Amino acid sequence: MQTFVCPDLDILEVKTLRHKLTPRPSPFTKDNNAGAGFVGDKDRIRLHTVEYESELSSGAACGNGVVSGEDDTCLMLPEWAIRSGPRDTIYFEPSQVTAAIVTCGGLCPGLNDVVQNIVFTLTDYGVPEDQIIGIRYGLAGFYNKGAKPVTLTRQTVDGIHLKGGTMLGTSRGGANIEEIVRRIDLWGLDMVFVVGGNGGNAAANAIQEEIARQARDVKCVVAGVPKSIDNDILLIDKCFGFDTAVEEAQRALLAAKVEAASGRRGLGIVKLMGRNSGFIAMEASMASGVVDVCLIPEIKFDQKKLLAHVGSILDRKGHCVICVAEGAGQDLVNQEGKGGTDASGNAILKDIGVFLRDTLKGHFKDQADIKYIDPSYLIRSIPTTSNDRIYCKVLGQGAVHGAFSGYTGFTAGLVNTHYVYLPIETIIQAPRKVNPTGRRWNRLKTAINQPDLH
Amino acid sequence: MQTFVCPDLDILEVKTLRHKLTPRPSPFTKDNNAGAGFVGDKDRIRLHTVEYESELSSGAACGNGVVSGEDDTCLMLPEWAIRSGPRDTIYFEPSQVTAAIVTCGGLCPGLNDVVQNIVFTLTDYGVPEDQIIGIRYGLAGFYNKGAKPVTLTRQTVDGIHLKGGTMLGTSRGGANIEEIVRRIDLWGLDMVFVVGGNGGNAAANAIQEEIARQARDVKCVVAGVPKSIDNDILLIDKCFGFDTAVEEAQRALLAAKVEAASGRRGLGIVKLMGRNSGFIAMEASMASGVVDVCLIPEIKFDQKKLLAHVGSILDRKGHCVICVAEGAGQDLVNQEGKGGTDASGNAILKDIGVFLRDTLKGHFKDQADIKYIDPSYLIRSIPTTSNDRIYCKVLGQGAVHGAFSGYTGFTAGLVNTHYVYLPIETIIQAPRKVNPTGRRWNRLKTAINQPDLH
Amino acid sequence: MQTFVCPDLDILEVKTLRHKLTPRPSPFTKDNNAGAGFVGDKDRIRLHTVEYESELSSGAACGNGVVSGEDDTCLMLPEWAIRSGPRDTIYFEPSQVTAAIVTCGGLCPGLNDVVQNIVFTLTDYGVPEDQIIGIRYGLAGFYNKGAKPVTLTRQTVDGIHLKGGTMLGTSRGGANIEEIVRRIDLWGLDMVFVVGGNGGNAAANAIQEEIARQARDVKCVVAGVPKSIDNDILLIDKCFGFDTAVEEAQRALLAAKVEAASGRRGLGIVKLMGRNSGFIAMEASMASGVVDVCLIPEIKFDQKKLLAHVGSILDRKGHCVICVAEGAGQDLVNQEGKGGTDASGNAILKDIGVFLRDTLKGHFKDQADIKYIDPSYLIRSIPTTSNDRIYCKVLGQGAVHGAFSGYTGFTAGLVNTHYVYLPIETIIQAPRKVNPTGRRWNRLKTAINQPDLH
Amino acid sequence: MQTFVCPDLDILEVKTLRHKLTPRPSPFTKDNNAGAGFVGDKDRIRLHTVEYESELSSGAACGNGVVSGEDDTCLMLPEWAIRSGPRDTIYFEPSQVTAAIVTCGGLCPGLNDVVQNIVFTLTDYGVPEDQIIGIRYGLAGFYNKGAKPVTLTRQTVDGIHLKGGTMLGTSRGGANIEEIVRRIDLWGLDMVFVVGGNGGNAAANAIQEEIARQARDVKCVVAGVPKSIDNDILLIDKCFGFDTAVEEAQRALLAAKVEAASGRRGLGIVKLMGRNSGFIAMEASMASGVVDVCLIPEIKFDQKKLLAHVGSILDRKGHCVICVAEGAGQDLVNQEGKGGTDASGNAILKDIGVFLRDTLKGHFKDQADIKYIDPSYLIRSIPTTSNDRIYCKVLGQGAVHGAFSGYTGFTAGLVNTHYVYLPIETIIQAPRKVNPTGRRWNRLKTAINQPDLH
Repeated sequence: MQTFVCPDLDILEVKTLRHKLTPRPSPFTKDNNAGAGFVGDKDRIRLHTVEYESELSSGAACGNGVVSGEDDTCLMLPEWAIRSGPRDTIYFEPSQVTAAIVTCGGLCPGLNDVVQNIVFTLTDYGVPEDQIIGIRYGLAGFYNKGAKPVTLTRQTVDGIHLKGGTMLGTSRGGANIEEIVRRIDLWGLDMVFVVGGNGGNAAANAIQEEIARQARDVKCVVAGVPKSIDNDILLIDKCFGFDTAVEEAQRALLAAKVEAASGRRGLGIVKLMGRNSGFIAMEASMASGVVDVCLIPEIKFDQKKLLAHVGSILDRKGHCVICVAEGAGQDLVNQEGKGGTDASGNAILKDIGVFLRDTLKGHFKDQADIKYIDPSYLIRSIPTTSNDRIYCKVLGQGAVHGAFSGYTGFTAGLVNTHYVYLPIETIIQAPRKVNPTGRRWNRLKTAINQPDLH
Repeated sequence: MQTFVCPDLDILEVKTLRHKLTPRPSPFTKDNNAGAGFVGDKDRIRLHTVEYESELSSGAACGNGVVSGEDDTCLMLPEWAIRSGPRDTIYFEPSQVTAAIVTCGGLCPGLNDVVQNIVFTLTDYGVPEDQIIGIRYGLAGFYNKGAKPVTLTRQTVDGIHLKGGTMLGTSRGGANIEEIVRRIDLWGLDMVFVVGGNGGNAAANAIQEEIARQARDVKCVVAGVPKSIDNDILLIDKCFGFDTAVEEAQRALLAAKVEAASGRRGLGIVKLMGRNSGFIAMEASMASGVVDVCLIPEIKFDQKKLLAHVGSILDRKGHCVICVAEGAGQDLVNQEGKGGTDASGNAILKDIGVFLRDTLKGHFKDQADIKYIDPSYLIRSIPTTSNDRIYCKVLGQGAVHGAFSGYTGFTAGLVNTHYVYLPIETIIQAPRKVNPTGRRWNRLKTAINQPDLH
Repeated sequence: MQTFVCPDLDILEVKTLRHKLTPRPSPFTKDNNAGAGFVGDKDRIRLHTVEYESELSSGAACGNGVVSGEDDTCLMLPEWAIRSGPRDTIYFEPSQVTAAIVTCGGLCPGLNDVVQNIVFTLTDYGVPEDQIIGIRYGLAGFYNKGAKPVTLTRQTVDGIHLKGGTMLGTSRGGANIEEIVRRIDLWGLDMVFVVGGNGGNAAANAIQEEIARQARDVKCVVAGVPKSIDNDILLIDKCFGFDTAVEEAQRALLAAKVEAASGRRGLGIVKLMGRNSGFIAMEASMASGVVDVCLIPEIKFDQKKLLAHVGSILDRKGHCVICVAEGAGQDLVNQEGKGGTDASGNAILKDIGVFLRDTLKGHFKDQADIKYIDPSYLIRSIPTTSNDRIYCKVLGQGAVHGAFSGYTGFTAGLVNTHYVYLPIETIIQAPRKVNPTGRRWNRLKTAINQPDLH
Repeated sequence: MQTFVCPDLDILEVKTLRHKLTPRPSPFTKDNNAGAGFVGDKDRIRLHTVEYESELSSGAACGNGVVSGEDDTCLMLPEWAIRSGPRDTIYFEPSQVTAAIVTCGGLCPGLNDVVQNIVFTLTDYGVPEDQIIGIRYGLAGFYNKGAKPVTLTRQTVDGIHLKGGTMLGTSRGGANIEEIVRRIDLWGLDMVFVVGGNGGNAAANAIQEEIARQARDVKCVVAGVPKSIDNDILLIDKCFGFDTAVEEAQRALLAAKVEAASGRRGLGIVKLMGRNSGFIAMEASMASGVVDVCLIPEIKFDQKKLLAHVGSILDRKGHCVICVAEGAGQDLVNQEGKGGTDASGNAILKDIGVFLRDTLKGHFKDQADIKYIDPSYLIRSIPTTSNDRIYCKVLGQGAVHGAFSGYTGFTAGLVNTHYVYLPIETIIQAPRKVNPTGRRWNRLKTAINQPDLH
């Protein structure tokens, strides 16, 4: 069980650059955003929404702390977060603003949607189109030669919400924070929007800190939009693109079911995303209704027990579908001595899908007809479904509203169905994980009749 | 602005039949639902999650009451609701239980999913398959001749979650409560599950009251699963099937955009569901990103202003897409004197889609190329997307857990991302509506640049 | 039964402008289109492919003539047509060519694909991008003020094959041929590509004739790409967009099935395209596997017999799905005296869908739960499925190859699985129709057990 | 270039068992299949439809022989084939018929459709439902213990056309023909329907020959329905399931495009089906419009030239998409000495996809961002698109009509858009291949600007 302690505050405050900036009224008039259209600076959203009768209640293992979304991770947190949305007072003169947008890390449905809505909202405020730039291929695009930033107009982003991928390009890997801040200064950027995962958010945080640290007067706010197809960002109800990913992932599970059921003692294996957290595997298994075994990183399994369980399913039903998250069973794969860490210090994941396929083939020999499916790139690259599309819109808008409000080092997110601003440093403490004693996992276990396999 | 007052309680309690029933331990053992798998009877979910700085904040028009989902309707409510889920103590001997399931009202994606999961969960508890019956074609199926109830086994509901519609059949219209209770008594039903809209829930409530009223000892609990493709049920974050409906609805909007943009001064009109509430129209417009004008029942519009606005869009962009909820502009249509109420006292809606089409044709004559699309039946009848499929599963499971816990007159629902049990009478007080000064509507207005049209 | 007589020729020749033009070698070199890559000018495709044992054979009603596609229309025709494809000799200097593309008539999936591939192939030949123009909103775009032609580059058409509609815009209605030829002369056009239906092809033919008639030396070839979502073009195996339309149309039929089966004595009615020919209704009914009654323009039906048949289906199955082509039953609708012709002399079709809905409602009253679906605009506007996308590519390429070969007044098409050039005047003699005694209709009748209803 | 010689006949005759059987009139009456509804026994379809001007014409490399579909394989063939369809005379008393259906080989969209329509048509003739059996998991299901045949009723096959896979199950591998014939005799089968690929058709042929060879009086006809997702069956216009497969395959190509375009020097590789023939790779590349390099088994490529070409694309466009058929480049992979043949003597294909991925990674190192997608199981398992669904229906019906006509050792197929019966032995002579000098391949090469890579 993870427990994170936050400073004993009533509200989870967000850093601002307001002291360096000049307030002025929002350009939104009565006509387009009248009266109650503005969000109060002191509006607040409650983070604590569940109270358990006792520690025995499902999900209550860490006491009456906060449980983000549905009881998956427990956190000690302040009671409130601040609300996202447009303020009546802003801290930048829109016509003078230069803003940059960058997408980083692996693909996730919704990147284009977020980029589009940051551009739309900036121009709604009145930022001139030729002062909005898109950094190419991730954070390194700030300083890499060869791929110059592009200008982002309403027209260049028109219709991109219906396309997968990111029109800006993306890349993995660390970033040179100093070089980035040098460019921010050089180019006179007032706002930098970073759409990225834990790495991207960490970089965004480092950029903000580097800006704060420097003597020279860089007045640039940094806003993050947390992207994780694994859905493993702390506190956030659900990451953008997650619903879309689950929708596509369960198509692969349904295909595996067809393959398995059409073969004699057919065994379909689908490997899904999820390095540290099994949310996609869990939810896609639940949605598909055809999975017999679901393996996630949070819960170890014993190889012998797994083989026996699969064998009994084959005997009983005639076929079996296994859904495995890429981060599951790493202890088994690494037993084989292939482990290690990469240059960035991340554990190199062994391919649990291939390992399972080979192990099951070795075990069942011709007593199972095994089909292995790895649909990851097909899932990452699709356009968003409607609810993700709306979600991305609001996140993109929220990031811009926050930036104009002078907030920095913050991220826009959805908590308990409400849009809030959160400090980046809070959400990147650790990946969010499936709670093995929470209701969600329990519901899946019950639904697929999965015994303890460890 | 709607305001509903509830008894000044700390918790929104749910009625029970426990006093008439015998408690016993849940059949779920350590193996399939261990320890923290049970939900405490006193676990509670907070209903109040937003606090506004002042009445000027977006959505705060009714003060610091509760705002379900995102700030659409304000309610005076208790602070807490009780949590949904399996209890360690149950009040029926599963092997003795006879249960009935009925679906009623118009089609909505997810009906089959809910039915399937009620059957699955009942049999998980140990209810014999031949003691689960499905009522055909709505509540009248309890007593109508010609369409006998069917037995529902795990096999009869296998795979139905991938199909649209309802395998039980459905119908609109009032029900004879006394006749239904007579059958409940006659058939020895212990549990009745009603999957329906406001009408169905009202009937479920009436059945529960009639059972409570009667001298004779009918020990049957009544559980509702609120169904509204319009998403207009009070308190619930989102009704099942709504996301699916929005996904399909925006396809029609994208088609209208193609038609409009391919014609000279092309004008595409799409009529969507939404008798009292414009959620589908609002969200599908937001998701599609192609709508120019969105008309919902909550906000009146002036015909002349609309015509002028559409004309200016045609002049500027060359084409225009209008999304109209079926309940919008009823005052205009009824001006023509075609109004009235039906046998049940409901206002008979005039066809605003056809009215708009004809009015716009009359106004623009050959200066607009008008295409009118009414996709309602195509939207209602599709299978669920993944998140709705999961949602329906949990609702179906929750209804059964609640019934075994002895609750009655209750409904399962999702509030602030947590599953709760709510008294039916609370949620049927009135339809939930879009808040004209809330953030959602404001976001759409800003996104599509829609001026006030009234 | 339709019978068309063609001049008693061995080959169905196509007109050329070669006498006015200078031959030169194709720019395609060994490297990109080597050797056998060219199509011989005398390559020929056989039009006659079936020989019937006797007049009693299914489809043989008109003797051993030619039956296009599958035995739907019988034609007296020459034995051969000329083959489509690039020639080694061309008649225009690519760098000097100015070409125009126009789309006309109602939307049909594939318009963008055809436009894209005409542009791609023109530039493959070496036509400069700024010498390719797109006429806006149909043939009237040649002379209408307000919507100037656009320049079509490889970039402007990039990706449009994944979008529905036509990027050029389209319109219905007659065209002023003289005005068009005046613009062809004025703008120095060498090639005009008309993507349109019977009307568009007739106009293309008239343009070619007007060019031929004129004394002044307009050396412009006219190529057609026959577009008919109804699939009613003579001789052609299948019109582009037809497969896509059937795919989408059967979704509406499956939705109607869900609606019908979920209602008590549910009756789903779907109106599909098909003014003169019932191909979409027939094929979508066949594909869906859920239709009980299929009504097409080619086969009259008696209202009483229909009502009796529908009643018997409702009695037997409990629900019924009717698929009706828009041109079916016009005699019944017109009985009501609403008929007439429009300005162009076309019969104004009465809405048979609404008529059926109302007639069935009047007949069955509350003994049927009727749902009526009109999905036409949703079908017309979708992007192409893969086989249509490929088909459109080849048609677009073929039109350009033919134009460079100096052919004029011709159309590219697929006959007996081979691509050919046909004289426009031949294919516009009459709409192609479903053969009531052919195998296709017989297969559907057998499949859905439909008796004679006339 | 492949050339196959057939006996110098005018018509490609099909074997019959009529001499052992008794003719009787078809049960189809005037009402459901009147008059021209029957196909004449002497109706014939022309196999030769193209005549080339010279050997230089595209596709004419083997002279004026027959070119099936579009010029991909040249065959010396008789002029005519016999027409498929119901005859007025049949050779089995329907009420006495016992029939078996078996599906074999890998999955292909449409298996369920074919099975369904064989069952539907058998019962249309009047075969009692309990006399139709389905063999489980391929031909071995005739004699394997453990998986007994199932009875196939109209109800058991209801709705299966909307599901992927095969409800009968399937398997690869050789079959014991004698054991099968023993069961045919034992069970008194009159008709055996084999839905399978080259292997299944060969087995069907062998069964027919074994029946013919045997002294004892087995009067069972054997009908094949050729299944090949690779589309490599001789003579047939297109195999069922092929269009569906291409539709799904191009989705993977579009995903690869998104991945490639979103990465810096992104390189997407998609491996598609196609052991001997590159039809899926070629058509999906054509349909997608996003492929830069297409590699098929018919055309060797030089590794160095490929690397250079890919490098130049990356330099020019910034990203590259490669589509490779599984049978392509086997000489390169086998250089590595991993080749061999399996127990059945088939060459064991090395994984060209993985080979390419690793070779390209080794070559470009960090100068390319490589994403590899293998979507095969996702493609095989989906339900049919509409045109395949119709095609499967007609094939299934045709197989039953042929069987009732007393034909044996035959297969139903589509040639030059007409349905015919062909002798199995003719179509299994060799796999059909893409013609490297034909128009289709040329069109793709031109479209994607692919130079000769060998």
